[in-house]
Amino acid sequence: MLWFASDYMEGAHPSILEKLLETNLCHTAGYGGDEYSQAAREKIRAACQCPDAEIHFLAGGTQANAVVIAAMLAPYQGVIAPETGHINVHEAGAIEAGGHKVLSLPQQNGKLRAEDIGQCAGAYAGDANRDHIVMPGMVYISQPTEYGTIYSLEELEDISRTCRRYGLKLFLDGARLAYALACRENTASLADIARLCDVFYIGGTKCGALFGEAVVFPKPGTVPHFFSIVKQMGALLAKGRIAGIQFDVLFTDGLYRKIGKAAVEQADRIRAALREKGYQLYCEGPTNQVFFEIGNDKLRRLSDSVQMSFMEALPGNRSVMRFATSWATDEKDVDRLIALL
Amino acid sequence: MLWFASDYMEGAHPSILEKLLETNLCHTAGYGGDEYSQAAREKIRAACQCPDAEIHFLAGGTQANAVVIAAMLAPYQGVIAPETGHINVHEAGAIEAGGHKVLSLPQQNGKLRAEDIGQCAGAYAGDANRDHIVMPGMVYISQPTEYGTIYSLEELEDISRTCRRYGLKLFLDGARLAYALACRENTASLADIARLCDVFYIGGTKCGALFGEAVVFPKPGTVPHFFSIVKQMGALLAKGRIAGIQFDVLFTDGLYRKIGKAAVEQADRIRAALREKGYQLYCEGPTNQVFFEIGNDKLRRLSDSVQMSFMEALPGNRSVMRFATSWATDEKDVDRLIALL
Amino acid sequence: MLWFASDYMEGAHPSILEKLLETNLCHTAGYGGDEYSQAAREKIRAACQCPDAEIHFLAGGTQANAVVIAAMLAPYQGVIAPETGHINVHEAGAIEAGGHKVLSLPQQNGKLRAEDIGQCAGAYAGDANRDHIVMPGMVYISQPTEYGTIYSLEELEDISRTCRRYGLKLFLDGARLAYALACRENTASLADIARLCDVFYIGGTKCGALFGEAVVFPKPGTVPHFFSIVKQMGALLAKGRIAGIQFDVLFTDGLYRKIGKAAVEQADRIRAALREKGYQLYCEGPTNQVFFEIGNDKLRRLSDSVQMSFMEALPGNRSVMRFATSWATDEKDVDRLIALL
Amino acid sequence: MLWFASDYMEGAHPSILEKLLETNLCHTAGYGGDEYSQAAREKIRAACQCPDAEIHFLAGGTQANAVVIAAMLAPYQGVIAPETGHINVHEAGAIEAGGHKVLSLPQQNGKLRAEDIGQCAGAYAGDANRDHIVMPGMVYISQPTEYGTIYSLEELEDISRTCRRYGLKLFLDGARLAYALACRENTASLADIARLCDVFYIGGTKCGALFGEAVVFPKPGTVPHFFSIVKQMGALLAKGRIAGIQFDVLFTDGLYRKIGKAAVEQADRIRAALREKGYQLYCEGPTNQVFFEIGNDKLRRLSDSVQMSFMEALPGNRSVMRFATSWATDEKDVDRLIALL
Repeated sequence: MLWFASDYMEGAHPSILEKLLETNLCHTAGYGGDEYSQAAREKIRAACQCPDAEIHFLAGGTQANAVVIAAMLAPYQGVIAPETGHINVHEAGAIEAGGHKVLSLPQQNGKLRAEDIGQCAGAYAGDANRDHIVMPGMVYISQPTEYGTIYSLEELEDISRTCRRYGLKLFLDGARLAYALACRENTASLADIARLCDVFYIGGTKCGALFGEAVVFPKPGTVPHFFSIVKQMGALLAKGRIAGIQFDVLFTDGLYRKIGKAAVEQADRIRAALREKGYQLYCEGPTNQVFFEIGNDKLRRLSDSVQMSFMEALPGNRSVMRFATSWATDEKDVDRLIALL
Repeated sequence: MLWFASDYMEGAHPSILEKLLETNLCHTAGYGGDEYSQAAREKIRAACQCPDAEIHFLAGGTQANAVVIAAMLAPYQGVIAPETGHINVHEAGAIEAGGHKVLSLPQQNGKLRAEDIGQCAGAYAGDANRDHIVMPGMVYISQPTEYGTIYSLEELEDISRTCRRYGLKLFLDGARLAYALACRENTASLADIARLCDVFYIGGTKCGALFGEAVVFPKPGTVPHFFSIVKQMGALLAKGRIAGIQFDVLFTDGLYRKIGKAAVEQADRIRAALREKGYQLYCEGPTNQVFFEIGNDKLRRLSDSVQMSFMEALPGNRSVMRFATSWATDEKDVDRLIALL
Repeated sequence: MLWFASDYMEGAHPSILEKLLETNLCHTAGYGGDEYSQAAREKIRAACQCPDAEIHFLAGGTQANAVVIAAMLAPYQGVIAPETGHINVHEAGAIEAGGHKVLSLPQQNGKLRAEDIGQCAGAYAGDANRDHIVMPGMVYISQPTEYGTIYSLEELEDISRTCRRYGLKLFLDGARLAYALACRENTASLADIARLCDVFYIGGTKCGALFGEAVVFPKPGTVPHFFSIVKQMGALLAKGRIAGIQFDVLFTDGLYRKIGKAAVEQADRIRAALREKGYQLYCEGPTNQVFFEIGNDKLRRLSDSVQMSFMEALPGNRSVMRFATSWATDEKDVDRLIALL
Repeated sequence: MLWFASDYMEGAHPSILEKLLETNLCHTAGYGGDEYSQAAREKIRAACQCPDAEIHFLAGGTQANAVVIAAMLAPYQGVIAPETGHINVHEAGAIEAGGHKVLSLPQQNGKLRAEDIGQCAGAYAGDANRDHIVMPGMVYISQPTEYGTIYSLEELEDISRTCRRYGLKLFLDGARLAYALACRENTASLADIARLCDVFYIGGTKCGALFGEAVVFPKPGTVPHFFSIVKQMGALLAKGRIAGIQFDVLFTDGLYRKIGKAAVEQADRIRAALREKGYQLYCEGPTNQVFFEIGNDKLRRLSDSVQMSFMEALPGNRSVMRFATSWATDEKDVDRLIALL
């Protein structure tokens, strides 16, 4: 069986396990006050060119989204997200459970457009009955998106400008950020993201860690008592060092970028093979996720030897499927996959 | 510096790291559907003599408390807890953030009494205005308690009987359960706990794991769609196997019990030394936490070489302090500590 | 100035004030335990042909929606509503503040279609990842809708059947129910509604009362401890009799129907006049709200003498506007309005 | 039967009903934008000597408490209240349902002491683990208290000073404020309260209105978008004028004070009679509630002819009972009651 169903089917990048072993008996303070977490924060600050950034390590993506959004919105505010955004579709209502409406806007290849954001915020501002409706308070985007596409620097600049004009916070979900940063098409660096967003996170779980997301507030103190909010929402790790150590390793010697690059290269090979063999790619993006159309008969045969993700049924007995690569993807498995296609 | 401040200052028991290394490249399904998590569940079911138990792995204690309590209470219900209970004091209001009042009752050595629970539930039932007050819906206890004491089997039987009489769910927080199970004084086995409680958790974070708590519902289906509630509250691990592997190891070859035993033995040595040297023990319990009184002058000197936890100021320039031991406590460090006392 | 902006611009139907005066000095128990509330409940039960119905009087529509939905949904469930539903648009996020997602579906003339509901519920049931998404738990419809249209008995039967097939609760918002019940086109009686819904409310605020909505659970005990939930959500009236007296009057001698009928007759006159004068009606419905298109120049002139509601801007410098009639609408004011059109 | 069970057993002061009748057919805007509400606000501002105060009319006391507290606290904050405070005991957990812990402190005759508040806030500030505990963010007091006692101006000054020192908001629940303002012992005027509190409300429901509480923010804009929060919590009245008209009447020609005075005079007569007849008064206060001890045998006999409220069982077959007077209390009924005692 070949495993291409997702990017979180294995343990962690070996360097992370090594470091966990090496530091295992050292004694440290709990709750992220340890020296490994501090070191990780410093390295992330450097990578973001953001020396004052406030950084918290949480355990997963839905948790990061739920905590950040609940912490940053006033009770009467909602969060703008693309219809296909993770918070709108796949978090079992975590944002609403925190009391806030997800204001979904149409997407294009998984992306929001600055223009649509401006229109939504402008409509609120211009509505005589606006006190009876949910105020847009934040914009949520993912880089890369659910469809593996990426925002260009220009698009992010536009969105950020629109957010600032309308007083909207900008939050970037970087659960798979390594794969955006590593692809050739990418024009938005970590430093750009830190400059343009009010808060974002650097994904670990889907980018080579056992678990963990680094939530970055470029401007410290953005949310007073964020630590207590994290605790209250059950998201504070007692052994905070376990997350800190992982991000310390990920941001040492460019490992985060290397992980991203390796996965994208294998995804590129798969994309090339699919094109060559006449498959129709779907919502084409340059990162580690490959979406393609396939007839259901062919799909059944392929499923005998390959694990992949079902996305959507198409008319005419066809389906949209996804392959995902990761740091753990073996070049030879990709050879085998290509042979099977 | 000697480290006795808490039981979560190091990484994980070496067997856990070994297994993480060994399984690192295996591919598995996410979200706890993997074979390691299944194996861990089977071993826990066996240890609890509860073949149908439904088991979920969460990341930490506050999270487990917040998720379980929110999932099991109706909106109009609150949870009875001892004044000193973790949920009442040290979770930054997580239970209230989930919408429920903590109905705090007096404690004795950190423990609730069945009699007080019955009185509280009876007062509600007998109150003509009860529809205007919070209905007790659950009892929360910890084994061991915040003070390191333990409930005897008889006490648990009494509490369980009272809960069933009044229709209260019984929830046992076992963040440090290994240390209760391992001490000589203990009379309540895992099987007893499973028989007497509606839900409980077996602590990993403070008992040798990197992180993780195993929430056990002895009766499956106790909370419909608990998985979705876990997801919604941001508590679902994408790489669920990381928690599963750890509990698999903890429940293989009696490791969980060994970890508890080793820590309790060292705590016993410290308790014996304190008594011998004329210290006053405080809220004396048989587990891995040692509470004692000390004059503040002496305390300052001791603090130069020992990390410990401050609990409470006493009159007469004295303090209550805590030493905690764990799987990682070195016998020689205990020798050094005893020499310093 | 002519007032056609809404149906809640005056006090209450004179019979209500009379009864308030008449009963003013009588002593009663609080919180709805009084004899007027009991009498009102009996009359509503009779009108619904539902002798066991459980009935609670709340103060307003958003409150009724927020309380009922929060009380009936499990944490992991959301409520299906038409895109234009009041809960989705005009309640400042009250449903999400209560922790639940509004699952909006397309509408046709303000109405949901049974088919779309079935598709939504079926898609959830068939989704392999359904535990990560919000479960549809309830369907919310309004009778009449936000556009003044009404569901036929057949449509309600279809929706109810679909709900029961998929285990969805059916909730009907009857804020303006008097106007649906009173119009000639109506085929769904109160008894039908009681038979087909799990819960609904009979609107008072917009149908002649000072305030108040009668929430009806055809099956008593549908929500255990609903009274306490009402109290907890700040929706319990201390002088519950004030609501009870109003509904007692509204359901005496067919007043509720008379109020609806008078308003619909005046609305019909306005509709006839608009048609005759060549206006384009919009989302044509048979109740007390009249939606029509008008050029903006003409609109400005009309606005000098008539209060109405702006609904929507149209291309070509046109707008959709609304007239609303009520028990208090004076026939002569309608004459004047018609003359002005 | 004589009715002394509470102060909300009748309709409204006749002047209120008169005005409702008189204005019944006037057309106004909804949601509190009407001229009656504006007039009421102006009169209240004048009475508070607070020309900029922001005033919102809500329907009841629990609702006012729930909305104000939810609106003013950050997620990580709780509200200090006396153990016997209405929010801690009789609101079915409304504050916790809004996400906040009630931090209960001991009371003396129903009152908090500035000293205890300071100690609680100081303990939080001085706790090394304070990020894990609930931050006191507000102080809730009632004037008069649940026991009918009142804070002196000096006590309010002390509490206000303590609150400002520790950054706590001060919130005064004035559900029965008329009776505090009207009694001879009172030294704290409405203007004092407006000067010393961050927010308070002037009770209508228990002071002669059909329903309604006037929430006063002496400093406008204290809570941004409070209107939307009110709407979101289901507390916005469509016909806001109904509340506005009532407060307009209550604050015209000193009616609010007259209502309070009449009730207190009758309560004073009852107190004098009880003392004279050798009853033991309980938690003696000068307002419209009279608490006294009585043997259970005698109580049974009295209950045949008098409605009163049971407060508490005492040892020795005795009970604490309450009489309450109001604007509607008939002097002759008090004569009869006294004769019966």
